[in-house]
Amino acid sequence: MKVGLLTGGGDCPGLNAVIRGVVKVIDNAGGKSIGLLEGWRGAITGNHIELTPKFTDPIIDKGGTILGSSRTNPFKNPTEIDQIVETFGNLGLDALVAIGGDDTLGVASKLYSEKGLPVIGCPKTIDNDLSATDQTFGFDTCINIVMEAIDRLRTTAESHRRILVVEVMGRHAGWIACYSAIASGADYFMVPEREVNIKEMIDVLQKRRDEGKNYGIVVVSEGAKLNTDGGFVTKDQEVDEFGHVKLGGIGDHVAKVIENRMGIETRSVTLGHLQRGGTPSAFDRVLGTRLGVHAGHLALKKDFGKMVAMRGTQIVAVELKDAVDQMRELEDSFFDEAAEFLK
Amino acid sequence: MKVGLLTGGGDCPGLNAVIRGVVKVIDNAGGKSIGLLEGWRGAITGNHIELTPKFTDPIIDKGGTILGSSRTNPFKNPTEIDQIVETFGNLGLDALVAIGGDDTLGVASKLYSEKGLPVIGCPKTIDNDLSATDQTFGFDTCINIVMEAIDRLRTTAESHRRILVVEVMGRHAGWIACYSAIASGADYFMVPEREVNIKEMIDVLQKRRDEGKNYGIVVVSEGAKLNTDGGFVTKDQEVDEFGHVKLGGIGDHVAKVIENRMGIETRSVTLGHLQRGGTPSAFDRVLGTRLGVHAGHLALKKDFGKMVAMRGTQIVAVELKDAVDQMRELEDSFFDEAAEFLK
Amino acid sequence: MKVGLLTGGGDCPGLNAVIRGVVKVIDNAGGKSIGLLEGWRGAITGNHIELTPKFTDPIIDKGGTILGSSRTNPFKNPTEIDQIVETFGNLGLDALVAIGGDDTLGVASKLYSEKGLPVIGCPKTIDNDLSATDQTFGFDTCINIVMEAIDRLRTTAESHRRILVVEVMGRHAGWIACYSAIASGADYFMVPEREVNIKEMIDVLQKRRDEGKNYGIVVVSEGAKLNTDGGFVTKDQEVDEFGHVKLGGIGDHVAKVIENRMGIETRSVTLGHLQRGGTPSAFDRVLGTRLGVHAGHLALKKDFGKMVAMRGTQIVAVELKDAVDQMRELEDSFFDEAAEFLK
Amino acid sequence: MKVGLLTGGGDCPGLNAVIRGVVKVIDNAGGKSIGLLEGWRGAITGNHIELTPKFTDPIIDKGGTILGSSRTNPFKNPTEIDQIVETFGNLGLDALVAIGGDDTLGVASKLYSEKGLPVIGCPKTIDNDLSATDQTFGFDTCINIVMEAIDRLRTTAESHRRILVVEVMGRHAGWIACYSAIASGADYFMVPEREVNIKEMIDVLQKRRDEGKNYGIVVVSEGAKLNTDGGFVTKDQEVDEFGHVKLGGIGDHVAKVIENRMGIETRSVTLGHLQRGGTPSAFDRVLGTRLGVHAGHLALKKDFGKMVAMRGTQIVAVELKDAVDQMRELEDSFFDEAAEFLK
Repeated sequence: MKVGLLTGGGDCPGLNAVIRGVVKVIDNAGGKSIGLLEGWRGAITGNHIELTPKFTDPIIDKGGTILGSSRTNPFKNPTEIDQIVETFGNLGLDALVAIGGDDTLGVASKLYSEKGLPVIGCPKTIDNDLSATDQTFGFDTCINIVMEAIDRLRTTAESHRRILVVEVMGRHAGWIACYSAIASGADYFMVPEREVNIKEMIDVLQKRRDEGKNYGIVVVSEGAKLNTDGGFVTKDQEVDEFGHVKLGGIGDHVAKVIENRMGIETRSVTLGHLQRGGTPSAFDRVLGTRLGVHAGHLALKKDFGKMVAMRGTQIVAVELKDAVDQMRELEDSFFDEAAEFLK
Repeated sequence: MKVGLLTGGGDCPGLNAVIRGVVKVIDNAGGKSIGLLEGWRGAITGNHIELTPKFTDPIIDKGGTILGSSRTNPFKNPTEIDQIVETFGNLGLDALVAIGGDDTLGVASKLYSEKGLPVIGCPKTIDNDLSATDQTFGFDTCINIVMEAIDRLRTTAESHRRILVVEVMGRHAGWIACYSAIASGADYFMVPEREVNIKEMIDVLQKRRDEGKNYGIVVVSEGAKLNTDGGFVTKDQEVDEFGHVKLGGIGDHVAKVIENRMGIETRSVTLGHLQRGGTPSAFDRVLGTRLGVHAGHLALKKDFGKMVAMRGTQIVAVELKDAVDQMRELEDSFFDEAAEFLK
Repeated sequence: MKVGLLTGGGDCPGLNAVIRGVVKVIDNAGGKSIGLLEGWRGAITGNHIELTPKFTDPIIDKGGTILGSSRTNPFKNPTEIDQIVETFGNLGLDALVAIGGDDTLGVASKLYSEKGLPVIGCPKTIDNDLSATDQTFGFDTCINIVMEAIDRLRTTAESHRRILVVEVMGRHAGWIACYSAIASGADYFMVPEREVNIKEMIDVLQKRRDEGKNYGIVVVSEGAKLNTDGGFVTKDQEVDEFGHVKLGGIGDHVAKVIENRMGIETRSVTLGHLQRGGTPSAFDRVLGTRLGVHAGHLALKKDFGKMVAMRGTQIVAVELKDAVDQMRELEDSFFDEAAEFLK
Repeated sequence: MKVGLLTGGGDCPGLNAVIRGVVKVIDNAGGKSIGLLEGWRGAITGNHIELTPKFTDPIIDKGGTILGSSRTNPFKNPTEIDQIVETFGNLGLDALVAIGGDDTLGVASKLYSEKGLPVIGCPKTIDNDLSATDQTFGFDTCINIVMEAIDRLRTTAESHRRILVVEVMGRHAGWIACYSAIASGADYFMVPEREVNIKEMIDVLQKRRDEGKNYGIVVVSEGAKLNTDGGFVTKDQEVDEFGHVKLGGIGDHVAKVIENRMGIETRSVTLGHLQRGGTPSAFDRVLGTRLGVHAGHLALKKDFGKMVAMRGTQIVAVELKDAVDQMRELEDSFFDEAAEFLK
């Protein structure tokens, strides 16, 4: 049994734990593992390294991916699909574990269904917005980083009696904003799933001020949308065809709105790539390892076209084709619990 | 609506998040909250402080409990039960949220069923060994602390070519040992649920050595049991009636066994109270908050005799009487996944 | 003896340690301390709180300043100077400890020399660029934050084979950039004290690439200046009268230059307020405490017009008037040591 | 120019920064570096690895030493000295940089003065107790670890109204205890340099209790000595010829004394190896790097028999023979400043 692995899309803490898990299981069963480099690009070119437990044992605490990554999508160029098929033959691969988000898994699913390649998927999205699994690795590390950053920023906000707007990841789903807002005791948060009521936000911030709290924290998903009625659209803030303020710099925009309406010094901070970097949390190391172990077991059982997923406290296998393209929005129950703190 | 809160038993990161959640929900509904001090002792004496959102808002990032704790059990002294009933009357309490482990919740359950007091429970055990809930707050912080400690200790072990035995909490269940061993890439771990095969451990450590890894990490639950056959019982190591080495200093003992069998310098470290201290992780802050919000909702609905619990991704209410005294051992599926790394 | 304290200018980890040190010393001697709120504004209005050791004991681990801060400069308005003199009388102050940077200490110095007020100064600049003291508190916390951020960002840069430009504080001096570049093993750094040779930077980055290192880290002071000859001035990059690229977004600019010249994906990150927030490092807590203790001793000895400062391993008192307006640039010896890594 | 490096004695965060600094400087000058493995043992056997900047570049953030360490002292066996001389010849070494504490540097000094070998020393002691240098690397990381541990332990002490005794490193000098006590706001600390007045400690703890602080923190150097008059010597506590309680378990002993005298639950924690592990602080990475760079420069200048040292903000070279065997005790000025908090 010879198993290939690759990682695609944006990097995420826990990727190396998955790799380590697969490699260990395959080695225990007497098989061999190789790593294709830089996502599907490695599957096209055949560029790879050998993976042994001795090599992957110490990577459990490393962020990112030792295999490198790219956003290469071979289905944009039919020749590249043929090259991937050739790579399987050239390298003698009995299975491929593809670890990635929607794009990477979409390619994996089509290679299985259209080309019959022995592919297994492992989900990865730092935004936690994949419906087929209860939680994705990297998300837990991310919310801890955001929380620690806000713990730091709070003392400056408090010393200078400011309001601070923190823009976090989440283009389509508000999991990161909602979780980190609860965890950091923020005064307000905004998510893509709900249209933001600017008046409500100002009222909450003013209420806190009136109660004697002389600073404020607002957490905003990068994908949050402001309504033009409630919002405060500046000249340089573009509005799309639906009247929503366009993506990009939403944190800066919200800060301007607050400062303008309340007359209180307000600053915005964009955490950016800090949110996806560094050593994984214990949860993400454990989740990544468990997914890798199960992916390895699927390979040994030749149970292809599946994706490993977390359901409750268990790791299960789901159909790869069902797992792709199904976004998981922030659940109403979460939002409602969190909304108790927006009063 | 006037709601009392108390925290009992060993402290745990996330207790303050629960308190903050209850207080906010009750305040949003126009009610009042008070904190009874030092566990059931405060319910007996009536010693308390007022809790407002302004006071509890900033405690989300604090470890321990602002209410203090104790191991007082009023059912050992009938007079104290009467005093608790009186306290309810004196303070005009409409509900009591008791946050604690088996002991605290056992008292809560009996006060509800035997005395008809309006009690709601919230589970707390850093060992994660309560069957009525999928995960308890504090556990996530704990395994991160253990993992970070092992990340630190590893460099010393490696520099001096040593084997290091790390004794962690877990008197009856191996969740902490198993999770932290996976997360830190340990070479072996021991849990109370399985009798330890000393020979297997030595074989694994020797195999790693033979492969060129010149140090080793072993994680041991404080409640792990060594077999006298496989084990190496020193003169000062007592054996109980079942032939198991008695609790206490199991880490030191295992280190001696390894050093004696392998002839390699071996040290043991007991992490002790470090494991339950400090600022909670994001997960524990969110879980604590959600449990607190739900406990507050139960109080508002006068739905007593219940305990809040986590099931999958949701918070639910279970019968308090069913929740007590049911230990949750390390699941076989977890152990088996982890066991891939004990080879 | 009644002593007032105030904190002015940007907040800095360690301010609360200074406050705690002064308050403890004054209390030990039987005196009283009060805190004037929000910098010189509090000295003008008399707005203050009482400070006791019981109150200030637990603030050692808190970032920012419990007294609040502002950039109020009373010498811009003579009436305010009179109000400050009145405040001394109204509150019965025997001494004032002013903790702040050049602006705050400049006011303190003039209040002493021109108005004869009993003032003692304590230096604060996160940039470490004050000539009268070997090191300022806050700087050590800052370089640890930058280092940890780069440790995080490195895994993403490595996974995606990118070059990463990190813009750090330092408008006039390169201490933060130089120290954090050494501490994080960066490939290049730029400071305000030296004109940047773009060609040299590109050569170093290319040399690393050729040696097989597939990512790069560049640290840039916000005040670094690019030469127009060596640099790559885009249309929207303004040049000042000396031909230097103007301040603001220097990190973004450098990233564009690198991407343009090398054809390698390059991103920039600006750490911003994260650099001055959060719990102080051990060094800054100890330095802040020692400075506070000495400032308290000066007050008890009525030794006014002085500033406490660090020289070697000792805390000494220097003339306040000599301490102001003397910038401490990055020493050549530091730069030369660090420059070994720019090859 | 071919330079050998070795690291001896207990590991310390920052050792790898020194190694990296030497290797880079030698490489910049066109020379070669090799690492002798496991302290003087490697110099005896010739067991070594090649060191290139590409190999040592990424080790800046790693604790411990990539060269391994041992406590081997070749002067106990004349044959081994001859073997070291042979190793210099066999490997063609033009210089040796020995990084270690008193023992390692004592050997280095004798190899230079008695055998004429081209040796340069670099000081290493986590206890910060070497007189020839203002501060040693590793110490800063250590006090941050102790401080963070106490920050964690404090919440448990507070929740349970306990007194907590924390035993830290420092067999002969109290730098670690004094610094970490100040940094963590401890109520009392004990160092080897001063005989402990138990009555004074109890008085301070009682005073805090009377003022309403319901917990306490005491930091104790492992080498602190209790007087039998003031102390409370239990049966199993041995007293030496001077009437001092013998070393070992001093923390446990102090906890027993406090609990016995005050009737308050008191626990002790020994931080042990945690104090010397893990990624170095920014200060230690910078100090280690600077020492390494200077050691490299000495080698290039063939300036042997010297040790690099920190004096004020500068790195200087001192005579190796003068640097050894001179302990640096906790300075009185430090103790007196800290003593303000023991009231």
